Amino acid sequence: MILPKPIQDLINALSRLPGIGPKTASRLTFFLLTAPDDLSKDLAAALSAIKSETTYCQTCFNITTSDQVLCEICRNEDRDQEVICVVEEPLDVLAIERTEGYNGRYHVLQGALSPIEGIGPDDLRIRELITRVSGEGVHEVILATNPSMEGDATAMYLRQRLASLPVRTTRLARGLPVGGDLEYADQHTLLRALAGRQDMGD
Amino acid sequence: MILPKPIQDLINALSRLPGIGPKTASRLTFFLLTAPDDLSKDLAAALSAIKSETTYCQTCFNITTSDQVLCEICRNEDRDQEVICVVEEPLDVLAIERTEGYNGRYHVLQGALSPIEGIGPDDLRIRELITRVSGEGVHEVILATNPSMEGDATAMYLRQRLASLPVRTTRLARGLPVGGDLEYADQHTLLRALAGRQDMGD
Repeated sequence: MILPKPIQDLINALSRLPGIGPKTASRLTFFLLTAPDDLSKDLAAALSAIKSETTYCQTCFNITTSDQVLCEICRNEDRDQEVICVVEEPLDVLAIERTEGYNGRYHVLQGALSPIEGIGPDDLRIRELITRVSGEGVHEVILATNPSMEGDATAMYLRQRLASLPVRTTRLARGLPVGGDLEYADQHTLLRALAGRQDMGD
Repeated sequence: MILPKPIQDLINALSRLPGIGPKTASRLTFFLLTAPDDLSKDLAAALSAIKSETTYCQTCFNITTSDQVLCEICRNEDRDQEVICVVEEPLDVLAIERTEGYNGRYHVLQGALSPIEGIGPDDLRIRELITRVSGEGVHEVILATNPSMEGDATAMYLRQRLASLPVRTTRLARGLPVGGDLEYADQHTLLRALAGRQDMGD
């Protein structure tokens, strides 16, 4: 049986999303068929708006609405202008904001160095970062790239590029995750946790 | 940090889909942000079309394009007119068609009896099924509802309703799934497999 074209079109489009295979796509499609009208309308409207109504902040390259040149964080005068936290993706900004433990600004690289995927320094927002750090009164750059091969390589590269500038460069701590179990920690994490052990104070 | 409204709108809309939580929704949203333009456009167009360009077949209540009164299967003269396979959802039609082992027609109930969810016989396409079986030259009705509590209850109810009509009523076989392992079969399945055991012939 060939499915009606509108159904097959939606299944095809949904299948192109990451983590959604043909089976999930058809389940979602048939769910949308019987769901209230406004759900598929809301989704269609939100999808049309996502590209046209958003843009990148001209300072930190995080996502912002297209009627603004700067994102909400860069516009916020109360935030510490002297610290920049460098992350790979806008979702990482969200993760750090959720901790409520950081009050500086961000710089979104929009990726990480990856020779395999052909992503070099010029494909990331590295030049813009160097310009920001050179120009403004920045005292510290926190490298918060992912604790992965690519993230580590990117952090190492940035450290070299920033070495000549009068700025403190730090990296997020490695160690055991909170609530984790020593028994199940992988050896690399445990090795980092040992190497980074801290005095317990008084 | 409050996310830009277009982003939050799409995350909210995606979160309403079954099996997609807030984390998956934001991952999909940020994927769509950086994906090629045509993906979000295709999705939006397919979503808008899904309701307006599809309708239910007036005979079997399967999904069909809205310019047709009957679905592709009901229009196909080559298919056996004397057998009707009763299923719960359009996706079940797809599953049976995929076997390429059935050449009759279908009847999509659009659900199963469920007193807990308040779904009674009048909420399903049961009256239309009785009319079809009474009127046309139907010789066999295969009850292919799900092997679940609701599916079984629906099949039992339909058997009673069809008892007075001159038609053979059958139910899909229960037993061990192909490729399964006896050791891991649950006791209900094993009990059904025992009860439904068949002679091996010559």
